[in-house]
Amino acid sequence: MLSALIFFKVRVKLIMKIKKIEDVNPEIPQMPGTKDVSLQWLITKNDGAPHYAMRIFTIEPGGSIPVHTHTNMEHEIFVIEGEGIMNNGVSEIPVKKGTAILVLPNDKHGFFNNSDKPFKFICVIPIV
Amino acid sequence: MLSALIFFKVRVKLIMKIKKIEDVNPEIPQMPGTKDVSLQWLITKNDGAPHYAMRIFTIEPGGSIPVHTHTNMEHEIFVIEGEGIMNNGVSEIPVKKGTAILVLPNDKHGFFNNSDKPFKFICVIPIV
Repeated sequence: MLSALIFFKVRVKLIMKIKKIEDVNPEIPQMPGTKDVSLQWLITKNDGAPHYAMRIFTIEPGGSIPVHTHTNMEHEIFVIEGEGIMNNGVSEIPVKKGTAILVLPNDKHGFFNNSDKPFKFICVIPIV
Repeated sequence: MLSALIFFKVRVKLIMKIKKIEDVNPEIPQMPGTKDVSLQWLITKNDGAPHYAMRIFTIEPGGSIPVHTHTNMEHEIFVIEGEGIMNNGVSEIPVKKGTAILVLPNDKHGFFNNSDKPFKFICVIPIV
């Protein structure tokens, strides 16, 4: 009985802390103007994360996130698949798999997938 | 002259905030017992990151990071390439591209690359 309880506890601990991207339901981002974009929350406050959350954005070919800002949070972004355009309000910058981007509070940022394959990036934000 | 200054400012801003993985020098991690592991700091305090830093670990085939803990920080990990084994002090858990892992303070964690290709993951840590 005791060993069964320990096994269950370990199982629960592992299930809570390790997630495969294909097991996380995609959501449609709330931001008005997003087109053909989905969002997966990989690591959140509900998982026990104390300071920041990890999400994945997928922008389908032709899809976009309009240029916007946040006053109260930074983003740390890493492109994990495909390529696209980042618009920082000044320039359109091609970005692709292997590119990291730091977006500070009040920095303008938007994304467009001008390729024919999905454009996917990690985006880490503070838990506020 | 003014336009040259504005251009320079925009250039500096972009250079500071966008990094390609191939442009970041790999370092050897300080931790004793690591074998065939390199570390790239993608987003750091020096880039202006206010709360957390983003690194990439690459473990070559046969390489490893021994099981260890940190008392003062969490890790948020996402496997971007390849596959390997995570050891949480209780079990050896296969992980691969597309897997996210939350390692809380005092959680045991170590990694081993039992494959024949590089095993790469993002690891986000607080700036302490």
